Amino acid sequence: MAILANLESYQQRIDDFLTLQLEQLSVNDPKLLAAMNYGLLIGGKRMRPYLVYTTGEMLGVDLQDLDAIAASVECIHAYSLLHDDLPAMDDDDLRRGQPTCHRKFDEATAILAGDSLQTLAFDILANHKFIGVRAKQQIKLLQMLSRASGYQGMCGGQAMDLAATDTSVTLAHLEQIHRLKTGALLESAILMPTLCVDDIDPEHVALLTQYSATTGLLYQVHDDIIDITSSEAILGKPAGSDQQANKSTYPALLGLQGAQEKERELYANSLHALDALPYNTQNLANFSTFIVQRDH
Amino acid sequence: MAILANLESYQQRIDDFLTLQLEQLSVNDPKLLAAMNYGLLIGGKRMRPYLVYTTGEMLGVDLQDLDAIAASVECIHAYSLLHDDLPAMDDDDLRRGQPTCHRKFDEATAILAGDSLQTLAFDILANHKFIGVRAKQQIKLLQMLSRASGYQGMCGGQAMDLAATDTSVTLAHLEQIHRLKTGALLESAILMPTLCVDDIDPEHVALLTQYSATTGLLYQVHDDIIDITSSEAILGKPAGSDQQANKSTYPALLGLQGAQEKERELYANSLHALDALPYNTQNLANFSTFIVQRDH
Repeated sequence: MAILANLESYQQRIDDFLTLQLEQLSVNDPKLLAAMNYGLLIGGKRMRPYLVYTTGEMLGVDLQDLDAIAASVECIHAYSLLHDDLPAMDDDDLRRGQPTCHRKFDEATAILAGDSLQTLAFDILANHKFIGVRAKQQIKLLQMLSRASGYQGMCGGQAMDLAATDTSVTLAHLEQIHRLKTGALLESAILMPTLCVDDIDPEHVALLTQYSATTGLLYQVHDDIIDITSSEAILGKPAGSDQQANKSTYPALLGLQGAQEKERELYANSLHALDALPYNTQNLANFSTFIVQRDH
Repeated sequence: MAILANLESYQQRIDDFLTLQLEQLSVNDPKLLAAMNYGLLIGGKRMRPYLVYTTGEMLGVDLQDLDAIAASVECIHAYSLLHDDLPAMDDDDLRRGQPTCHRKFDEATAILAGDSLQTLAFDILANHKFIGVRAKQQIKLLQMLSRASGYQGMCGGQAMDLAATDTSVTLAHLEQIHRLKTGALLESAILMPTLCVDDIDPEHVALLTQYSATTGLLYQVHDDIIDITSSEAILGKPAGSDQQANKSTYPALLGLQGAQEKERELYANSLHALDALPYNTQNLANFSTFIVQRDH
């Protein structure tokens, strides 16, 4: 299994930072705050924060500045899970082996907790006392996060995904769905740190963009594959649930072997994008390897 | 009836600006985009944009800069209505005499349209090409909007409101609910323009804060009153619907006469806060009068 350098220390770091953010909130509504806590802090692999930290450290960005970026991306991710799990959407009872937020609390609370976590993402990014990030760069961070999260990113992708359920889509359409639904936010995790670097070479940003786009897709293709090949005990949710829900997936479109072939191609491309970068890209390369090796 | 100066021209202006924002989005999912359009552009009194424009012009802020502020506040307001109307929340079928978004489309789409409109608020504020607003001021705008919208503002207030349904609350608790649920965003509409003014006298900001807090509460007290005294044809929704839903309201707590007394007191206080301001505050005074005269 590929080793993700500093994974545990980054996980601890982002958990501590996120915990602090919630602790600083005044207790207006204990139930809503508990649901936000549940959605944000119970479990989660913290892959997006990992990408923020590992890319940011590679680029020499201050860790304390990366905290806010990692937290904002994770808040968006957490809110999207709360809303995607709702009965009107994917109607999931389990998430990471635990009851989903609307099962643990109730639907209204899960909706509001998601709403509040989305706001918290922008709140953290707007209010953080950055050390090495100037105001104009901070605005660029807010621009990138909002573009990746909304209609032109994650939300639009989720809508396209719902619309594609029970219909047959082309490969290009499926890729567009995933580029928006999961790719946009993963890309931001890798690209937001580049906005903190003065005079970064645009070619390096282009290569990291290529890496992040390829890796985002790789992540989704692998997700689709393990939904079929893994078991409920390992996934923390029923295996084959995408298939049962008549979701558009790579295996549904290309067959399992075709999807695995696609995965190999994306994996090679993601490593290739790193070749010309004059940084130590070993951790990012390991991340690609980690993706294709994981079973949940 | 109090005259709101330039009301129609401001309404036209914000509708044009919001229309442009939606037109600039690529069409990824036509249904989601239509639902965003429906939630943002079908009807609405545009009271919050009115407050942004009228306060901002009073302070000498550029109209084109106010466009983004007004639009961001209205996007937050619109998203909150879509989610508050959902079956899991207030379960409303009508809004402004039209089917609510989840009735016109479906629940998943209404949730996602609300999510996307929240993001759009921050997107607009982060991406606007401001003329007279510097980057540090722009960040302060984003700080204020996020603080007013999330757990510590509107979302927290909505959760407290839901928790207070079917229970008896104190007057102080009810005021806290409304300060957060509707007050925080109304206050932002008045205070965000002050962030655009260099070297504004903190005492003037304090007085505008006092005006906005009082007026926000006044707005809610009057809303509670007309829910009882007005008819369905005028309200565009069933009269007495708050009462039927066992909602905590001022009339429920103070009786109708007590609520009307409270309204008179808040009205006087809101005008009083304007007295010491060295601006032409006639439009804001008219706004307070307009609130207590409106029947829907």
